[in-house]
Amino acid sequence: MAGLLFVISGPSAAGKGTICKRVLAETDLELSVSATTRKPRPGEEHGREYYFLTEEEFVALIENNGFVEHVENFGCRYGTLVSDVQERMARGKDVILEIDVQGGYLVREKFPDCILIFLIPPTPEELERRIRNRGTEDEESIQNRLQTARREVKCIKDYDYLVINDDLDVAVEDTKAVIRAERCRVAEDKCSSIEQIFKES
Amino acid sequence: MAGLLFVISGPSAAGKGTICKRVLAETDLELSVSATTRKPRPGEEHGREYYFLTEEEFVALIENNGFVEHVENFGCRYGTLVSDVQERMARGKDVILEIDVQGGYLVREKFPDCILIFLIPPTPEELERRIRNRGTEDEESIQNRLQTARREVKCIKDYDYLVINDDLDVAVEDTKAVIRAERCRVAEDKCSSIEQIFKES
Repeated sequence: MAGLLFVISGPSAAGKGTICKRVLAETDLELSVSATTRKPRPGEEHGREYYFLTEEEFVALIENNGFVEHVENFGCRYGTLVSDVQERMARGKDVILEIDVQGGYLVREKFPDCILIFLIPPTPEELERRIRNRGTEDEESIQNRLQTARREVKCIKDYDYLVINDDLDVAVEDTKAVIRAERCRVAEDKCSSIEQIFKES
Repeated sequence: MAGLLFVISGPSAAGKGTICKRVLAETDLELSVSATTRKPRPGEEHGREYYFLTEEEFVALIENNGFVEHVENFGCRYGTLVSDVQERMARGKDVILEIDVQGGYLVREKFPDCILIFLIPPTPEELERRIRNRGTEDEESIQNRLQTARREVKCIKDYDYLVINDDLDVAVEDTKAVIRAERCRVAEDKCSSIEQIFKES
């Protein structure tokens, strides 16, 4: 049976990365490996940390609809490969993706059966505290992130699940429950396989 | 926010009762109290074990569409009260119902948002072993139950979740994951409440 695709999304500083790491450590989900045009650092391996591509290869993939989404950061390109996600799911592996709120819509376009999880701190005050605690942003950028978050909350209705990241352990358990439950969800292939087993003899 | 309604269904001897008891002991779900026309036994209390009704009261409720479903057993009537389920959900409590496979459809009719969980042993051989282990049935009745189960499997497609009851502990954890996940499911009331909290100031 084909694997499932779980998408962890939410505003900046919602805790997407932390939740993803914990879920990957505590389940058998696989993280999709992204492609990038940046040079490999010592110890990095093609296909493990990233698929390292030339600018030409990357652009060709964009033109061939090969990315779920892609961004440019400090002159280097990064993108989630449709092929990498597909290949893992075809092997029956469940895949997890961490992506920003708008990216969730792009994933659903390419993978209509994906499971979209929206992660959010309990209050805007807590979100602000977390952004400030990073200590990496100036006031304008903090205010921008907060305004963006307030807008992004309106996208929750298009997501499947809402996980409130107040206590991290609770949020991890909620996310793992969503994964476990979705594995029990009735799907056509599962129905026919159990019908086959119970076929009237 | 209104509570959720979980329905545990599946063929006879699938383990519905055992799973329900475990879930009730390990979560804060409430079991709906049924109505019956049988006389209370010593120690039984109206509204706790059952709502004890007269034949006339019971029939009046049938006529007023007051039951999710009702059956007759050894001359006594038993039924799941719509009002009891509604009242618990209105108090924000999540409710669990144990019901046979056809009953699942009746629950969905009255409560379209209910969550239907189909419970089944891994194989028909295992189901047969469990029916025989009860030691309460003659051969004809065993064969009847097995034939019914083989038919009921075709209803899985109309259910939301399929829990394979091979190892009981695993099946209980699967069921609890479904409950936990459904509590995270995006619903209209949840969206507006979080939108309100994050409203642009």
